[in-house]
Amino acid sequence: MAVTVEPFSMGAPDDVAELESILDGLQSQQIVRIAVIAKTEGTATTNDFSRSLARMAIGSALEARGLLSEERSQIVLSTGCEGVISPGGYLLVETGEIGGSLALGLARSPVLTPEEMIADAHIAHARDTVRAALADAGLEPGEATLVLMKSPLLTHAEAVGLPAEQRRWAGISAASRGVAALGIGVALGEVPAEQAHARDVLVRDDLFTRRAMVFSGTETRRCEAIVLGNRAGAPAGLRIRSGGIADLIDIEGMARVIAPNAPDPIRAVRSMAGEGRIVAAFLKAGVARDGRVRGRRTTVFSSDLDPDKHMRAAASGALAGLIGDCRMFDSGGCEHQAPDGGGLLAVVTTE
Amino acid sequence: MAVTVEPFSMGAPDDVAELESILDGLQSQQIVRIAVIAKTEGTATTNDFSRSLARMAIGSALEARGLLSEERSQIVLSTGCEGVISPGGYLLVETGEIGGSLALGLARSPVLTPEEMIADAHIAHARDTVRAALADAGLEPGEATLVLMKSPLLTHAEAVGLPAEQRRWAGISAASRGVAALGIGVALGEVPAEQAHARDVLVRDDLFTRRAMVFSGTETRRCEAIVLGNRAGAPAGLRIRSGGIADLIDIEGMARVIAPNAPDPIRAVRSMAGEGRIVAAFLKAGVARDGRVRGRRTTVFSSDLDPDKHMRAAASGALAGLIGDCRMFDSGGCEHQAPDGGGLLAVVTTE
Amino acid sequence: MAVTVEPFSMGAPDDVAELESILDGLQSQQIVRIAVIAKTEGTATTNDFSRSLARMAIGSALEARGLLSEERSQIVLSTGCEGVISPGGYLLVETGEIGGSLALGLARSPVLTPEEMIADAHIAHARDTVRAALADAGLEPGEATLVLMKSPLLTHAEAVGLPAEQRRWAGISAASRGVAALGIGVALGEVPAEQAHARDVLVRDDLFTRRAMVFSGTETRRCEAIVLGNRAGAPAGLRIRSGGIADLIDIEGMARVIAPNAPDPIRAVRSMAGEGRIVAAFLKAGVARDGRVRGRRTTVFSSDLDPDKHMRAAASGALAGLIGDCRMFDSGGCEHQAPDGGGLLAVVTTE
Amino acid sequence: MAVTVEPFSMGAPDDVAELESILDGLQSQQIVRIAVIAKTEGTATTNDFSRSLARMAIGSALEARGLLSEERSQIVLSTGCEGVISPGGYLLVETGEIGGSLALGLARSPVLTPEEMIADAHIAHARDTVRAALADAGLEPGEATLVLMKSPLLTHAEAVGLPAEQRRWAGISAASRGVAALGIGVALGEVPAEQAHARDVLVRDDLFTRRAMVFSGTETRRCEAIVLGNRAGAPAGLRIRSGGIADLIDIEGMARVIAPNAPDPIRAVRSMAGEGRIVAAFLKAGVARDGRVRGRRTTVFSSDLDPDKHMRAAASGALAGLIGDCRMFDSGGCEHQAPDGGGLLAVVTTE
Repeated sequence: MAVTVEPFSMGAPDDVAELESILDGLQSQQIVRIAVIAKTEGTATTNDFSRSLARMAIGSALEARGLLSEERSQIVLSTGCEGVISPGGYLLVETGEIGGSLALGLARSPVLTPEEMIADAHIAHARDTVRAALADAGLEPGEATLVLMKSPLLTHAEAVGLPAEQRRWAGISAASRGVAALGIGVALGEVPAEQAHARDVLVRDDLFTRRAMVFSGTETRRCEAIVLGNRAGAPAGLRIRSGGIADLIDIEGMARVIAPNAPDPIRAVRSMAGEGRIVAAFLKAGVARDGRVRGRRTTVFSSDLDPDKHMRAAASGALAGLIGDCRMFDSGGCEHQAPDGGGLLAVVTTE
Repeated sequence: MAVTVEPFSMGAPDDVAELESILDGLQSQQIVRIAVIAKTEGTATTNDFSRSLARMAIGSALEARGLLSEERSQIVLSTGCEGVISPGGYLLVETGEIGGSLALGLARSPVLTPEEMIADAHIAHARDTVRAALADAGLEPGEATLVLMKSPLLTHAEAVGLPAEQRRWAGISAASRGVAALGIGVALGEVPAEQAHARDVLVRDDLFTRRAMVFSGTETRRCEAIVLGNRAGAPAGLRIRSGGIADLIDIEGMARVIAPNAPDPIRAVRSMAGEGRIVAAFLKAGVARDGRVRGRRTTVFSSDLDPDKHMRAAASGALAGLIGDCRMFDSGGCEHQAPDGGGLLAVVTTE
Repeated sequence: MAVTVEPFSMGAPDDVAELESILDGLQSQQIVRIAVIAKTEGTATTNDFSRSLARMAIGSALEARGLLSEERSQIVLSTGCEGVISPGGYLLVETGEIGGSLALGLARSPVLTPEEMIADAHIAHARDTVRAALADAGLEPGEATLVLMKSPLLTHAEAVGLPAEQRRWAGISAASRGVAALGIGVALGEVPAEQAHARDVLVRDDLFTRRAMVFSGTETRRCEAIVLGNRAGAPAGLRIRSGGIADLIDIEGMARVIAPNAPDPIRAVRSMAGEGRIVAAFLKAGVARDGRVRGRRTTVFSSDLDPDKHMRAAASGALAGLIGDCRMFDSGGCEHQAPDGGGLLAVVTTE
Repeated sequence: MAVTVEPFSMGAPDDVAELESILDGLQSQQIVRIAVIAKTEGTATTNDFSRSLARMAIGSALEARGLLSEERSQIVLSTGCEGVISPGGYLLVETGEIGGSLALGLARSPVLTPEEMIADAHIAHARDTVRAALADAGLEPGEATLVLMKSPLLTHAEAVGLPAEQRRWAGISAASRGVAALGIGVALGEVPAEQAHARDVLVRDDLFTRRAMVFSGTETRRCEAIVLGNRAGAPAGLRIRSGGIADLIDIEGMARVIAPNAPDPIRAVRSMAGEGRIVAAFLKAGVARDGRVRGRRTTVFSSDLDPDKHMRAAASGALAGLIGDCRMFDSGGCEHQAPDGGGLLAVVTTE
């Protein structure tokens, strides 16, 4: 089993020309699993339909090649290319070949009912989906380096009939991300199962996973998970690393994730980047609830702009500054995915 | 003559508590010139009145201390604290004391009529204002390290009666910045006087100044300039440096501006920052007209978000990542202030 | 005691030229009470400072004429001139003259602490403020035709230290309006005191006042009330009328409020408007929680645009269509100020 | 030949359930022409992809029923459901049956190159497309009651290589609508051919058509036209009427278009509406360039909100107030489609 990671660019949410060109280069009869992870360039508002459009286009591209399947394929999209984020994504393909170094697992939950969303059932679905993805990858919970999850957003329309307590979460991405993160944390052994309750979402800062990124959206009503890890004892090749960063301008911390053993990590990263060894970069970076970064007040939570837009844009500048590249999967909102104010960086590099 | 530079934070556009506290520590009878340069946290839309409010509050603070004056004082405000920019600014004060290392000059043009705006007269006003500010500072054109200019924005209301050719610039900040930059370039000897025409604004990429930052707004109908430079032969103390950067994620270029003689500029900057030696940072960073950064497509010019917001936010992440601080004067829009896609960084450091 | 109502226009939030001209025409020694009610043209986002600017400018205009006073003057501002709302407002002045037909009362609460906001204390403050304003006007609760109230918005900064239950209301205008409306309802005898609880804000649709309009904002930390009514047995002159409308496109209902006794109210209103008899118009119009108007789905709650902006803009078209004038005080958000989906219109006319 | 008009609602841009249900009720072997005209609920920004998504969904619905064809079918979409506009549209179907009262014609231009856009060639394409659609409908230019046209928007990406004069129109919908309107005006005999020049777009207010509505977008690179008129001497049935309105709050003018012969048009319209006789309503309403409506200043051109959003939302309130229904095709931007400040209403009614 060998997993390859191929970046591709998009000129619009329905521009799959580069992706199709890569797909056409694959020997499809050998493909065991396939995942597409991409940033789309919509407005990231309730009435942004860029993900639906991209999903339709990417789905068609896979389908036309016989690669779309409930069990073997997964598409995770996240909207918002603010700052210098270049629209596009990564194609992850696992073939039957021998000798790969990365492990890939996929899973999706049943469709969540409105009643289940932002409730304990949502946590349970996220947890079970990660467990299934871990099993699919052949990884133990401790071996997962990165979990990517799409979690459904409770829409205003769905929420109309719900109790007030639950209805207040309608349209709030942070809540959808938060409950899913709690479920992932339980699956990875980072959050005690008996403490993972929907009532504590966005409340208990002490509960978080440290190896997951969650995105919410209306284009799916399921929890959908992609799990990545390194195969123990595998030969040199691709390697995935992840690690926490102190805040979204923590370029030293980012450098230490990418080049953990280098004496001067920033210089090492710049050298690796120059050699084209950074294949993929995934960043989740938030800002502490009080809106401060390194003690300075920011307007992340007190402006006309959605906090996620501030975060994605600023983080794109920091990471692109470090690695000298605008190709990245950069997303805001670290609810229960990091300590308050912190974030997560994951990179796939060639060793 | 000695110039000091004092940073201050603002909790809102009319929060001048920190500024007042610094002003109260000054011996006002010795003050020769005073300038306040600040970022305010409005929406940066036509109906953003944060600068008017800040100007009223800062003006009152100066006036109450007998420091507001047509000739001796200047207030330059720029809206937009997207990303991690911390609202606040810098107080520049020149006293009669002997031995300072910085030179400061101020000037303002007469009120521009709507007919003069985004026209050759606008260029001439900008040019003359810089010349007056240079004279005020006792600097030759080649000695100016940084020119900060506020240039009036042509409003839709003002434009109603104007010719169509000029009316189309109503509400377009880029045009106001561009014509002012051409005038500054003439004054600094960087743009040939006979080639500086309003008809070439936003058209001729080959005409630009390399030592100026221009901000447009509706809170003044004048061109207002602040000129800064280093006094030749002055003793050690504050020093201002400025230099071009290749693009807004060029942290190597930024580091070379701050620590031009260091063998490893990034490391040197982080060390200087740790010692508190970076007193003020001014950044103007744009994106090339084709929207590409390092060859990658961005959505800076093709999204719901104003291009300036993308630029300011991303640049804040890059610079804050480098210097480890969110206090900065970061502004987007480098029309005729840099080659297409480039930018300018200026810093005041202690030597 | 005679109350006059004078409309004025504003060219910007700090443009008080028309207001000053009216003030200068008053015989200020006779003025007993003065109220300014205006719409300002900011973005209506957290970082919109148009109200602060307007308040400073209007306050200065009153102060310069000796008319600013804690007890005798009141300024109520509401941001948002979407659609065809013309920026400006109404000056209400009560003089010592004999024979007026309108009654005017003013009151303000103490400063609310963050702990008190969107809590039962907030309801109590609103209630007591209305009671004080009623007493000030010499009106019984049943005689108040219109209560205008400004209610403080809980900011994110203030909310940082509060319990999660309360913190979730930070930045949510609807909650601030809702609790104040419950308090007003108690004071007017429309909401049973024992049922007015903050925990039911935005939850219990059956609790509402029918004669109040509430606006929230950050420019004050107090509840501020203006009460208007008709003096029983007064001679002909100005008359205030208010009444519920079924939804924001209910021009028949609006017409019945303005011309209650006419056989063809729409035609009667158009005739009154043509004669200049509509002196002032105040409209609060909301959309039912399910986003439907006359059974049709709208995107009021499911778009990038703030719901209030949809509502204000659409309502401005409906009311301006009816009265043929864009001068109006039109505001969205009827939480606990009307049945779900309904609204309130109040007009001052000459009889 | 008989033309029917069927309204349908959409729950999202890709929700074609109602449309499909209507299509399934048609006897498709008899269908000669088919047109779908709909409002989609995106953000109406450059990065709004709701029209692409709707086009894909509607196209698939037609294709699955063998109704998609270059010559016989047309889909015209317009984004923006601000205010109380209910998302959805109208299905126009022409069958081979005898006795219809409406005439329908369709046509589309070749793909426009970037060089042709917002240039004289664009005008010519629009003109020729209308002429082809008139021929398709069997109508003389003077018999067209309504022309609906989709005109391609010049994108920033396309404009990169163009001359500065043309590049400045990139992303500006008003320019795309304006040149197309000039071409339509030539085809309808309302604009002298020799005076229709791209250089006068948005400049010469005296050139306009009075029977057309133009929408711009990036989802097509062609000019696409739908022409509607009444067949002379046809039996009673559906009837289309169109007429100018003075401004967007002109409900009297709207009423006169709908009920031209009634002594009290507003009352007549409300009665017709109550009887369900208003089958379809198309409204294009603008605001004069100086931003004034009935002499009052509005913020339509001087706010954070796109002018089209102000206009669509306010006009929706006025028209819905009049007809008591939120189902409408309401669009802003009347460049060269009306005198400055005016608009156009068209309705299909049953006689």
